[in-house]
Amino acid sequence: MNWKRKDLIGLEILSREEIETILKTAKSFKEISTRSIKKVPALRGKTVVNLFFEPSTRTRTSFELAAKRLSADVLSFDVSTSSVSKGETIVDTAKNIEAMKVDCFIVRHSVAGAPELISKNIDASVINAGDGCHEHPTQALLDLFTVQEVFGKINGIKITIVGDILHSRVARSDIWGFTKLGAKVIVCGPPPLIPSGIEKIGVEVTYNMEEAIERSDIIYLLRLQKERQKENFLPSLKEYSLIYGVNEDRIKKINKNIFIMHPGPLNRGVEIKSETADRENSLILHQVTNGIAVRMAVLYLTIGSRK
Amino acid sequence: MNWKRKDLIGLEILSREEIETILKTAKSFKEISTRSIKKVPALRGKTVVNLFFEPSTRTRTSFELAAKRLSADVLSFDVSTSSVSKGETIVDTAKNIEAMKVDCFIVRHSVAGAPELISKNIDASVINAGDGCHEHPTQALLDLFTVQEVFGKINGIKITIVGDILHSRVARSDIWGFTKLGAKVIVCGPPPLIPSGIEKIGVEVTYNMEEAIERSDIIYLLRLQKERQKENFLPSLKEYSLIYGVNEDRIKKINKNIFIMHPGPLNRGVEIKSETADRENSLILHQVTNGIAVRMAVLYLTIGSRK
Amino acid sequence: MNWKRKDLIGLEILSREEIETILKTAKSFKEISTRSIKKVPALRGKTVVNLFFEPSTRTRTSFELAAKRLSADVLSFDVSTSSVSKGETIVDTAKNIEAMKVDCFIVRHSVAGAPELISKNIDASVINAGDGCHEHPTQALLDLFTVQEVFGKINGIKITIVGDILHSRVARSDIWGFTKLGAKVIVCGPPPLIPSGIEKIGVEVTYNMEEAIERSDIIYLLRLQKERQKENFLPSLKEYSLIYGVNEDRIKKINKNIFIMHPGPLNRGVEIKSETADRENSLILHQVTNGIAVRMAVLYLTIGSRK
Repeated sequence: MNWKRKDLIGLEILSREEIETILKTAKSFKEISTRSIKKVPALRGKTVVNLFFEPSTRTRTSFELAAKRLSADVLSFDVSTSSVSKGETIVDTAKNIEAMKVDCFIVRHSVAGAPELISKNIDASVINAGDGCHEHPTQALLDLFTVQEVFGKINGIKITIVGDILHSRVARSDIWGFTKLGAKVIVCGPPPLIPSGIEKIGVEVTYNMEEAIERSDIIYLLRLQKERQKENFLPSLKEYSLIYGVNEDRIKKINKNIFIMHPGPLNRGVEIKSETADRENSLILHQVTNGIAVRMAVLYLTIGSRK
Repeated sequence: MNWKRKDLIGLEILSREEIETILKTAKSFKEISTRSIKKVPALRGKTVVNLFFEPSTRTRTSFELAAKRLSADVLSFDVSTSSVSKGETIVDTAKNIEAMKVDCFIVRHSVAGAPELISKNIDASVINAGDGCHEHPTQALLDLFTVQEVFGKINGIKITIVGDILHSRVARSDIWGFTKLGAKVIVCGPPPLIPSGIEKIGVEVTYNMEEAIERSDIIYLLRLQKERQKENFLPSLKEYSLIYGVNEDRIKKINKNIFIMHPGPLNRGVEIKSETADRENSLILHQVTNGIAVRMAVLYLTIGSRK
Repeated sequence: MNWKRKDLIGLEILSREEIETILKTAKSFKEISTRSIKKVPALRGKTVVNLFFEPSTRTRTSFELAAKRLSADVLSFDVSTSSVSKGETIVDTAKNIEAMKVDCFIVRHSVAGAPELISKNIDASVINAGDGCHEHPTQALLDLFTVQEVFGKINGIKITIVGDILHSRVARSDIWGFTKLGAKVIVCGPPPLIPSGIEKIGVEVTYNMEEAIERSDIIYLLRLQKERQKENFLPSLKEYSLIYGVNEDRIKKINKNIFIMHPGPLNRGVEIKSETADRENSLILHQVTNGIAVRMAVLYLTIGSRK
């Protein structure tokens, strides 16, 4: 199957086959980062622009490295010091940079839909690096890649996502990705943070962590956004940690072989205890490593689709 | 004609022939940005440093891309976190970076004359990327390039520059450039913002936008600096927009074939209505595209002149 | 002798032979920055990450240039906008970036020991770019390189370091480096800013600048940290300048051939008068130039030692 889309906005609109094409392409790119010379000329002379309206050094760095390992030129457009702060619209900003003949924008924005709005107004590729509470597709793709690598398959795997499902773009993209590829997705968290009606898209809900740990192959812990507490969505951090956090005692008692995933950065001691983050079955650093391969694949496919 | 200057400080001191050399060189570079591999090795192993004492993501990005498409290494020296804030003089800063054997500085500063001061104290090339109310030569060069491309010539073209002429380095550089190449330059704006005696350098003044639109091939709208209002140079934004802004009604009634230029970023609804910014005869995005070619030419010529 | 260490944490733990290996390697790299094409492919496809928890454009720029002249890819991880500010530990931050398969971290941190802590937790190389009041090894190495270049040797040279010895990581690294290579080190400064017992590591103390200037081949002026005054370590700036600052009158009267060194940035008029900073025997800009060669050597040796 050939890749046809110039953009990657979210996993909701991708077919199972499209997701598999990305994962397959990522597999062939993963080896590059283990070489002594970690660079191939696939995107030489292409220009990739980081357009981050929300700060995120980690994701930005991962995209930047992915682009550089494909020999692309990378520009970071720091929005805080840019003309955006002079009242320019985001579409004008993007059109202006596109006029410099760039090939791809990596867009992060606090408002859901911003990357799509940009993508509809320009010819360059747009990759969504997280938009509001909507999607964070490359995070979900690297999660899928990691699961496939560890289990040899995604179909039939049981994964429980724990935390603030309501506000999480990571959860949203992961739910689309894992269900499309045949995994069983369970969500668990404080009741006000579970979207009502989520069962309709094929997800199971539980409020019981013991049950979730027992029934799952993987526990996927979301980062607790401490600011949610002020909005009265959350009990105290201590209470959250006690009910929804994981630690070695809890895991060993119920399901000692369970795998742990987390999108980072960690709140050690809140959603996850230190020793659990570092346990043998923790896939957290594998996820980060695979982020490079997946982002190389997405850059290669989307930019490559533009003839 | 060979290029002899290590620096580009302003258009006032350039001859007509020198300006034409830059435009001719830019023409040969423009095609590179349309290639699949947008890169030539002309400045491989050269080091270009962005030394911006005033923030400007747009101009900085344009220079950075231009340098990278010539295969130069580019460093951005962020002055806000640098030793400049520790009380070092700008000449010391530049001399120190030059001691690292760099080839070219791109300098933006809020004080007129700063790039020239630096250029006199170092051997590396200095390109003025805007200094106070003095000059912004690469902006004017890309404007000249765009007009030549659209009209096939500059000589005899009538261009009206509208807005705060008094404080605009863009206006100043454009006036030098367009008059040297034989265009007729008219300026129009609120009387306190037109420098008295400007007619002496061959510029015509009008306070009547209808007349300006009628007589011109091009209306060049300056960005309205909203902070000027506080200084009592300006009436309300609404009034400014009514008297000096352009919109489709106005243009269609008087001179529907007129071309629109603007240095960006736009204040949509103030100096320009949205539909006019996006009209067929708007050259705004062409200007941005040509900025890359012109800056490639300036980097190539100035760095190349150094031995 | 082959280089065996993956990290460069400080000069205290290096042998004389190791320091000489770095200086010898730097010598072979210095010529590269004088070429028309200032670039060699030695570290092509390697990834170097600037991880600066304290701002320092100057040192960061020097490392970035050094890495680029060896054809490495360089990432700057801006900690102020990063997940570190979200409460992640520095070891987690480093491990996460390392998982992206990077080869070397350049670490600056306000806390002594931070680079070593990171180095013990990751496989990538770590180069200390300054940690608290502990060490700044590449600064001392470039100082050693400069002295060797000017005097043809280090053994037997008399160098006086002037200023706040107590809080200076530059002084500390220089003392280790110069004494290991056989120079005579004298320290001079306000009594509360000279560590008690410093004589035990082979350093001589004087509080008399005239005597120091008379007996030395080199005066190494530390940058005065003006904030020390608030902590009552210092008299007024005027008084400091009068007692410990150097100027041409003073030098000409006592020892007109003395060489001046300074790690930058300068406080002109405080620890050094303008005319003295720019005198013929000032090595300040030579130090900056040599910083590139020394950092190229350190990057090459440490990254090269990893298999």
